[in-house]
Amino acid sequence: MRKDASNIITLTTDFGLTDPYVGIMKGVILSINPEASITDISHGIAPGSITEASAILLEAVPFFPAGTIHLVVVDPGVGGKRRPIIIEARGHLFVGPDNGVLLPAAQSLGKISIRAITKRKYTLPAVSSTFHGRDIFAPAAAHLSIGASPLDFGEPVDDPVVSEPAVPEKTGEQLHGAAVRVDRFGNIITDIKEDMLKGFLRGKRPVLRIGPTEIQGLSKTYCDVEKGKPLALIGSSGFLEISVNQGRASDLPGVEKKEAHDIKVSIRRHI
Amino acid sequence: MRKDASNIITLTTDFGLTDPYVGIMKGVILSINPEASITDISHGIAPGSITEASAILLEAVPFFPAGTIHLVVVDPGVGGKRRPIIIEARGHLFVGPDNGVLLPAAQSLGKISIRAITKRKYTLPAVSSTFHGRDIFAPAAAHLSIGASPLDFGEPVDDPVVSEPAVPEKTGEQLHGAAVRVDRFGNIITDIKEDMLKGFLRGKRPVLRIGPTEIQGLSKTYCDVEKGKPLALIGSSGFLEISVNQGRASDLPGVEKKEAHDIKVSIRRHI
Amino acid sequence: MRKDASNIITLTTDFGLTDPYVGIMKGVILSINPEASITDISHGIAPGSITEASAILLEAVPFFPAGTIHLVVVDPGVGGKRRPIIIEARGHLFVGPDNGVLLPAAQSLGKISIRAITKRKYTLPAVSSTFHGRDIFAPAAAHLSIGASPLDFGEPVDDPVVSEPAVPEKTGEQLHGAAVRVDRFGNIITDIKEDMLKGFLRGKRPVLRIGPTEIQGLSKTYCDVEKGKPLALIGSSGFLEISVNQGRASDLPGVEKKEAHDIKVSIRRHI
Repeated sequence: MRKDASNIITLTTDFGLTDPYVGIMKGVILSINPEASITDISHGIAPGSITEASAILLEAVPFFPAGTIHLVVVDPGVGGKRRPIIIEARGHLFVGPDNGVLLPAAQSLGKISIRAITKRKYTLPAVSSTFHGRDIFAPAAAHLSIGASPLDFGEPVDDPVVSEPAVPEKTGEQLHGAAVRVDRFGNIITDIKEDMLKGFLRGKRPVLRIGPTEIQGLSKTYCDVEKGKPLALIGSSGFLEISVNQGRASDLPGVEKKEAHDIKVSIRRHI
Repeated sequence: MRKDASNIITLTTDFGLTDPYVGIMKGVILSINPEASITDISHGIAPGSITEASAILLEAVPFFPAGTIHLVVVDPGVGGKRRPIIIEARGHLFVGPDNGVLLPAAQSLGKISIRAITKRKYTLPAVSSTFHGRDIFAPAAAHLSIGASPLDFGEPVDDPVVSEPAVPEKTGEQLHGAAVRVDRFGNIITDIKEDMLKGFLRGKRPVLRIGPTEIQGLSKTYCDVEKGKPLALIGSSGFLEISVNQGRASDLPGVEKKEAHDIKVSIRRHI
Repeated sequence: MRKDASNIITLTTDFGLTDPYVGIMKGVILSINPEASITDISHGIAPGSITEASAILLEAVPFFPAGTIHLVVVDPGVGGKRRPIIIEARGHLFVGPDNGVLLPAAQSLGKISIRAITKRKYTLPAVSSTFHGRDIFAPAAAHLSIGASPLDFGEPVDDPVVSEPAVPEKTGEQLHGAAVRVDRFGNIITDIKEDMLKGFLRGKRPVLRIGPTEIQGLSKTYCDVEKGKPLALIGSSGFLEISVNQGRASDLPGVEKKEAHDIKVSIRRHI
């Protein structure tokens, strides 16, 4: 039995909070470990969106203590051939489908090791073909929280499925990125990390373009510009963000009503 | 005092999560039992929908451990003559209004016994006529969780109110069912239980009709059919479900924008 | 160290439940106090609405036990000059921005004392300029929950920012109020407190006007009037409320689609 077992289990799903699915998974966990401390990260992931779920997980995981078990069910391939897996990385454990959703957050912590869940010892007695969150993943997370070792669940995996999102690219004198998500405040969070931006700018000021809007320079905080004006800043998660002071960047011209991944940002160096 | 008292309390309401009502009920519970482990099943029940709440409870309850206290506040008759009650069934306790919402889940567990909540000993000092979730039901659940016996709350009830939803019926060679709810993925969950379907089919393959769409046979999982095609399967809760692989059954022709209970499904045996 | 430290921490934010922000704050709290019992009051506050957040907090706080720590992040001025503060009132602690959002609930409990959070001892190592909920407020709440004293965080504050909402006023023979919020059931909760209404009526029956609708007298509960008819009552939080029995007051003529604060109610004494 693992000695560093923790009662803290996080949940990230695309189940929403109206259907009983999240409550059912919590019931399964509490039936196995009545002391579990279950924390929701998000159940509002767009149905089946591996990109959105892995971005949100990447953002949240660093703020949980080592020992935390992260249970993720965004699983459009449920009932098909995709494997259920457990990933271990610097004391954190990740439980979910082998569709790429777990990898970015796990790899951001350090070296990873992966096990398939093949043994039936830790599943519910009956495993359906449509709700593995309940029948396989929740029981796995609960058993890990009371000390089971990932080694007990199945064979090592060395060829995990990778979900490659588009990444920012340089063409000529421009850096091209895309939005990863739009938050409740209308902030547009992009896939351009602070380091990458600094490397591209080489000390110059950036000039950003999003739709027809041009933004000069980086702000430190929302109120650095006048009310209603757009700005760019490095957001709290370390990625370039487009915002409007006391407004919604998602209402800027050429942006409204677009899906996040259809919102493009390009950057050039100020001369 | 009951020896099998459990700290696990589930909540199912139609209060939503924007108003403070759910938080207030949790405050009342924690004021009485600071160790309570409170788990949300759903707060997204359509306002006043006893049918939806009882279906969701029926689905979730079997996955919670014996000793769990299920607190349900879907209570369109609050302040009127309906009784507050406690139901005990195979070690689970149910607390809520006597309007039929608790019965299906309680009866699915086994033999039930019911008490009215008539004594004022376990209510808040002032009982309003509009928020019994706060003033009567939450304190009752909290006191049960620290060992109070249902016998302490009031007299036995042997004539509980029954809320009879429509049930599937056979006419000639057809079985007619209706949707109970449409989930976040657009899956249509019907009121036709697996046993009933098997009894009707007597080994034959089913031919389903939903609006103008005909579906032949039962699938095991979503990806048994091509992307975008409709299918029927026995869902994770044991009821017949209509789905579309990587799509939304709720967008099928003749179904869109309908309330769940207005969506009808008919089945005949394949010849 | 404080001896009355409590593990109960409530959260009230305008973050919604889709973005990872609430989960991140919970991760920060659990990293400092793994035993914390975190309870959501609401994350559905309209973005930046200090009025709505303070009304909801005022309604919920009295139902939590003394010792509870109330963490509130509705913070349109984040990154600007507004101070982070801790308020103590009758054993409850409030943590959040100094923008008026905490005051009404704290003052409703009794005498208050306020400290600024100026020392860096209890913040995260890096403090961003856009997410003080994560970097300052969540760590402060967590450290308070394991016994830190408000005195350890910084200097006393005797000039807190006050957010003065409009208050009901008397003109001639009328009392004029406004809606504070519209709840999920379409009930219109006003800013007219029971005491104020009684003082105005001096034993007479009220005649209310909301848009073109006139309502005579106060009801005790929703079912005092016929189905579909409007009524007025003193709601569960002690404020005048306009409702429709088994309907939605927010659909009454002259009210539909209005923001809460644009919905006006006037009252005269019946002759």
